[in-house]
Amino acid sequence: TSLKHPDELKNFLEPEYRYWLNLSGIQEIDLVKAVCDKLNMHNLIIDSILDFAQVSKFQEFENNYYFSISSLMATSTLELEYEQISFVLGEDYLVTFQEKVGDHFNHIRDRIREGLGIIRDRSCDYLLCLLLEAILDDYQKTIEKLEVSESEINSFDLELDPSPQVLREIETHKVRVDQIKRALISLREIFLKIEREKPKLIQTKHLKYYVELKDFTISLIDNCDRLTSRLESASNLFFSIQSHRMNQVMKILTVISSIFIPLSFLVGVYGMNFNYMPELQWRWGYFVLIGVMLTLIISMIIYFRKKKWI
Amino acid sequence: TSLKHPDELKNFLEPEYRYWLNLSGIQEIDLVKAVCDKLNMHNLIIDSILDFAQVSKFQEFENNYYFSISSLMATSTLELEYEQISFVLGEDYLVTFQEKVGDHFNHIRDRIREGLGIIRDRSCDYLLCLLLEAILDDYQKTIEKLEVSESEINSFDLELDPSPQVLREIETHKVRVDQIKRALISLREIFLKIEREKPKLIQTKHLKYYVELKDFTISLIDNCDRLTSRLESASNLFFSIQSHRMNQVMKILTVISSIFIPLSFLVGVYGMNFNYMPELQWRWGYFVLIGVMLTLIISMIIYFRKKKWI
Amino acid sequence: TSLKHPDELKNFLEPEYRYWLNLSGIQEIDLVKAVCDKLNMHNLIIDSILDFAQVSKFQEFENNYYFSISSLMATSTLELEYEQISFVLGEDYLVTFQEKVGDHFNHIRDRIREGLGIIRDRSCDYLLCLLLEAILDDYQKTIEKLEVSESEINSFDLELDPSPQVLREIETHKVRVDQIKRALISLREIFLKIEREKPKLIQTKHLKYYVELKDFTISLIDNCDRLTSRLESASNLFFSIQSHRMNQVMKILTVISSIFIPLSFLVGVYGMNFNYMPELQWRWGYFVLIGVMLTLIISMIIYFRKKKWI
Amino acid sequence: TSLKHPDELKNFLEPEYRYWLNLSGIQEIDLVKAVCDKLNMHNLIIDSILDFAQVSKFQEFENNYYFSISSLMATSTLELEYEQISFVLGEDYLVTFQEKVGDHFNHIRDRIREGLGIIRDRSCDYLLCLLLEAILDDYQKTIEKLEVSESEINSFDLELDPSPQVLREIETHKVRVDQIKRALISLREIFLKIEREKPKLIQTKHLKYYVELKDFTISLIDNCDRLTSRLESASNLFFSIQSHRMNQVMKILTVISSIFIPLSFLVGVYGMNFNYMPELQWRWGYFVLIGVMLTLIISMIIYFRKKKWI
Amino acid sequence: TSLKHPDELKNFLEPEYRYWLNLSGIQEIDLVKAVCDKLNMHNLIIDSILDFAQVSKFQEFENNYYFSISSLMATSTLELEYEQISFVLGEDYLVTFQEKVGDHFNHIRDRIREGLGIIRDRSCDYLLCLLLEAILDDYQKTIEKLEVSESEINSFDLELDPSPQVLREIETHKVRVDQIKRALISLREIFLKIEREKPKLIQTKHLKYYVELKDFTISLIDNCDRLTSRLESASNLFFSIQSHRMNQVMKILTVISSIFIPLSFLVGVYGMNFNYMPELQWRWGYFVLIGVMLTLIISMIIYFRKKKWI
Repeated sequence: TSLKHPDELKNFLEPEYRYWLNLSGIQEIDLVKAVCDKLNMHNLIIDSILDFAQVSKFQEFENNYYFSISSLMATSTLELEYEQISFVLGEDYLVTFQEKVGDHFNHIRDRIREGLGIIRDRSCDYLLCLLLEAILDDYQKTIEKLEVSESEINSFDLELDPSPQVLREIETHKVRVDQIKRALISLREIFLKIEREKPKLIQTKHLKYYVELKDFTISLIDNCDRLTSRLESASNLFFSIQSHRMNQVMKILTVISSIFIPLSFLVGVYGMNFNYMPELQWRWGYFVLIGVMLTLIISMIIYFRKKKWI
Repeated sequence: TSLKHPDELKNFLEPEYRYWLNLSGIQEIDLVKAVCDKLNMHNLIIDSILDFAQVSKFQEFENNYYFSISSLMATSTLELEYEQISFVLGEDYLVTFQEKVGDHFNHIRDRIREGLGIIRDRSCDYLLCLLLEAILDDYQKTIEKLEVSESEINSFDLELDPSPQVLREIETHKVRVDQIKRALISLREIFLKIEREKPKLIQTKHLKYYVELKDFTISLIDNCDRLTSRLESASNLFFSIQSHRMNQVMKILTVISSIFIPLSFLVGVYGMNFNYMPELQWRWGYFVLIGVMLTLIISMIIYFRKKKWI
Repeated sequence: TSLKHPDELKNFLEPEYRYWLNLSGIQEIDLVKAVCDKLNMHNLIIDSILDFAQVSKFQEFENNYYFSISSLMATSTLELEYEQISFVLGEDYLVTFQEKVGDHFNHIRDRIREGLGIIRDRSCDYLLCLLLEAILDDYQKTIEKLEVSESEINSFDLELDPSPQVLREIETHKVRVDQIKRALISLREIFLKIEREKPKLIQTKHLKYYVELKDFTISLIDNCDRLTSRLESASNLFFSIQSHRMNQVMKILTVISSIFIPLSFLVGVYGMNFNYMPELQWRWGYFVLIGVMLTLIISMIIYFRKKKWI
Repeated sequence: TSLKHPDELKNFLEPEYRYWLNLSGIQEIDLVKAVCDKLNMHNLIIDSILDFAQVSKFQEFENNYYFSISSLMATSTLELEYEQISFVLGEDYLVTFQEKVGDHFNHIRDRIREGLGIIRDRSCDYLLCLLLEAILDDYQKTIEKLEVSESEINSFDLELDPSPQVLREIETHKVRVDQIKRALISLREIFLKIEREKPKLIQTKHLKYYVELKDFTISLIDNCDRLTSRLESASNLFFSIQSHRMNQVMKILTVISSIFIPLSFLVGVYGMNFNYMPELQWRWGYFVLIGVMLTLIISMIIYFRKKKWI
Repeated sequence: TSLKHPDELKNFLEPEYRYWLNLSGIQEIDLVKAVCDKLNMHNLIIDSILDFAQVSKFQEFENNYYFSISSLMATSTLELEYEQISFVLGEDYLVTFQEKVGDHFNHIRDRIREGLGIIRDRSCDYLLCLLLEAILDDYQKTIEKLEVSESEINSFDLELDPSPQVLREIETHKVRVDQIKRALISLREIFLKIEREKPKLIQTKHLKYYVELKDFTISLIDNCDRLTSRLESASNLFFSIQSHRMNQVMKILTVISSIFIPLSFLVGVYGMNFNYMPELQWRWGYFVLIGVMLTLIISMIIYFRKKKWI
């Protein structure tokens, strides 16, 4: 059910129910404040929800826990879209605050509505676990998108001079992967803290699920590392191809210059107008010179062949 | 109220008040010493206040705490201006020592004067928390300035040979970000120490605010890391563009040399003065040669087109 | 013995026996589920077995332990083939789940069948230790293969312009070694955890064998580090050879141009058609010029010899 | 007072005095051994004093502490001069062993002689603290010298091809800073150990001074890091300027070649001796050709202007 | 005394003696096994001794300790020769197993034979300490050899194009130093473990000697780090010199081309055969042209001088 006005909340906040409240659009500050007040949240939680700082954190308060989770999703142009999602977990309620109308949690909402699975029978901390997993799934999709795009970039044509535009893409990718990795690391810190401190609002039998989430996060960080090292390879390769192209261009210039500059000198010699140049009078002078020049060309070509230049 | 002479202090230092003393210009050593003596500060505090060492630190003394906080603000030319601000927190007083007439704390002073907010009703450790936040806000502004300037630098024109001046700017930026990051790391250490040791002059209910400051510092450090990785990308890109430019220059040289050096040789041949050169007598010799040369030029151009050089 | 249907299991699962169950092909989800149910495994174990996440982990459950081990084996083309092997260790049973029909454990199976060694007399945790060692042995073989192939790559011919293809191979190798290293690190974490926590299903007298496995893993990680540093050397060398080749090509171009361009100018001078050019009338003009040119050539060659260019 | 013979020591070693013994020239092994024996030092201390190993360390023995401190001072040519200074701190004595006649502690000796300050009234551990501070001051001076010299190096002329000599200086600087940093890190370890273990021969009221020394060391390490990152910038800049210079040289070559090689071809054409070349007979042929060539030159120059090459 | 057959051992293994058994050639498996059995060693020790894994480790067993120490010695060609030396320390015996007939311990054996020093009077753990120190001394000699050879490599001739062979040597050196460093790090771990756990077979009064060994190892690691940073400097310098050489070659090419290509064009102009070319008829045409060309050459040279190219 979607609510229009904070006052309607009153009906829901009956102590005997377990409920999940999903607020999209934390821009409506008044609504957020009203909800928070109704649930007796600490001032700091309200400040944090309305603040747009990009850190994931987990704070324990007297009668509830506050989770602030960063979500990074890749758009179709691989731009990273940042969203801060806040969770407040109480003994019998879970409230989520999203900046945008959420597309993270649709399938979970559907499963609850249809009464599927074990979600309805479990407590709020189990639901929270599912929601966090949904966010991690989105991270995984983003990393996969970046991996696909990295493969495309990395399939250089080794025989073409690559444009710096390619390097710019590689570098932008690196920055993105780095950003995702750092977001995941602060998520891992949260799960580590939960594993270590075993907070009382999370039931002991559900702790194992949080440990699973931690392992999932670690494997995602691992993927980021792998992607980074592949991107660094691509960047090394890029520079090498640039040098290789240069080498090839220089070789062609050198081969052509080395063959024709000496020949031009030779023909220049016999273009001189000295009164007495015996070779010019010889009957076969011209043909002898042509023979000499052909010999020169052929021996040059053999020399460059041996040097593997052509 | 601003004081002219240390003796005027006496009137203020009545035990029943909570007060905040803000001293600008620690160059006036006598004044600083007088204040410190009045408040029974440890010798080491006085030494530290007057010392210009650039480290942030937090020391607990018997009846007060000493905080030395580094502040780095960017001027309009993005030079980093360093200032060391000292705080002495007692049970019912807070003294701040600034090198310059402060512009960090104006808005807080204004709020106290106008009796706004909850500042007046809280204890000195809460005030300290606000002042530290003001310093972190200044760090954030500095980082944002550097980010704006980094974006400008990073928008290379890929088709121009970049001047090493650009790289010098990138490198200077890196050094600056590095400096800010290290300053923030020593701040984080202070907040971590407070979180861990829960010093008694800081009220338990205010501890959460210090944890918030720690999170803020961590997110700033994160921004520094992101900025550094972007600057490293820019520097990689810079080198790649330099190589790319070189490649293009070399290609033009090679194309022109490869086309005209062989042609020059050809025309040189028929500029020779041998008595017997049959081609020279042919009626259409000249035009045949021109035809041959045009064919050569065209096939060269096709060759370079295929190699994607022109 | 190989089973066709999960129901046949019942006969085996008599409490008085110690047994090892080796399931290949975890694609047959129903079979896996049936076995797991029979052995009263936790839901999370079943999920993990069927999940293809590439992380090694060790989880303790109430009456059994779950090990998920990543195996990386190099094919003949040095592609890394990934396989996730799951172990469930109970008090008197050990179940292994493999994706493919296993080739890791053949020699161990043979030794059990033939009743060789001390395997039959020991408990399941000792068997597990042997199986894990078999996986580590496969890692070692993979690393050795990569080392052999690295030596081949690293034996550059210093006098040939290396193709970027070589660098691509180096970089691919780096990525592979990095992947193996990370897989081994998560294995080391597992052995460290066992050494530290001394879980009760592993007999104290067998703990030393697990410590041995940890040392083995550490020595493999060490090998990976050594391989990485060698690959980085190879990549440095590659770039240096590229530059060196370029230098040599440029030197040849420069030597030839420096010798013949001035000479061409000289012969050009005496090819001019001015009416009055005294040298042209001299009887020995031509021979004097040839002498001058020979002197020039020889002094050029001496100059370049001294500069060590030729 | 300066002593000539170990036996004179006897007079000094009266239990009722606090004294400071400063030995220069640990080459005189007999003297050192005599002093050590008189003061009942452990064998290991004597070995360490006479050993020239370059590590800073702090060891607690039954009735005294042994400090081995590395000192690195820059000579006028910025060579680093290494000296190992040993301190033995007993309950009522402090002995220092220097390799050279010391210039570290002159001002402290002067202050003691003149009875200035609070040094005379304090215990030996306070004196040790002052001596260690003097060594750190020397480190600071060395770092400042290197910073001055780094600024000189870093002020490249962007328009000159830099000699590898400059890079050699940068690299030598890096090695030096690295050496200083590592020496400081082992000093920091000593101060951390003192802060943590609060050894009983150091009075509790003096501990704060050692913490101060730790902070001083950390700020020096910080300076080293900053210097290193500046030197890395300088080295990056150096390579960029090399490439930039190359680009400019290549541009000039390309511009001149591109303009004159085609023109040379053109004039070559009309230097040919074909019997029938209609243009040669034309009255204005020569001037038309000159016009064509001027047009070519001008359009080339416009083209290169547009490409920002000249 | 050297033994020929394991049975001879029996005579030695009398409980009332402290003894040191030094076995060279662990290839003789039967001998090793016999000795181990006689001394009641754990199976794992025997396996480890016969295994050639290249890790240093320290394991405590019920009645003895097992040390496996890697030794790396440089041959005259600076190849690193690897040897694994095993020590088994019991309450009143010490057995060493070497692959080769040992050259590490000769001077210690000599001192024992001659009854020199305090070795004979001390227990086996003190002897072990001396043996380990001998191995570290060999490490130190190896590092010193590498340092000498590094100095030779690093003294580049800045004016010669360096061969990639030099870089290959630098890189091989790096790999070697890295290998030594990693071997030393695992040794340090052993000494740290001993310092921390204070194992009971090592007498408390000898513990300080092990701490000394730890400090020695740390100082060796430090030397490795210094060597590595010097090698990285050398490699940077190498690349810079390569670029510098290229720049110089290009400058010479550009200077010669820029001077003579325009001049060749000029003389080409007056080599044309147009019927009407007024300059050709002028009396002083030739000499005017020579004057023009000399002016050109001189102004070119002045230009390049100003640019600091020649």
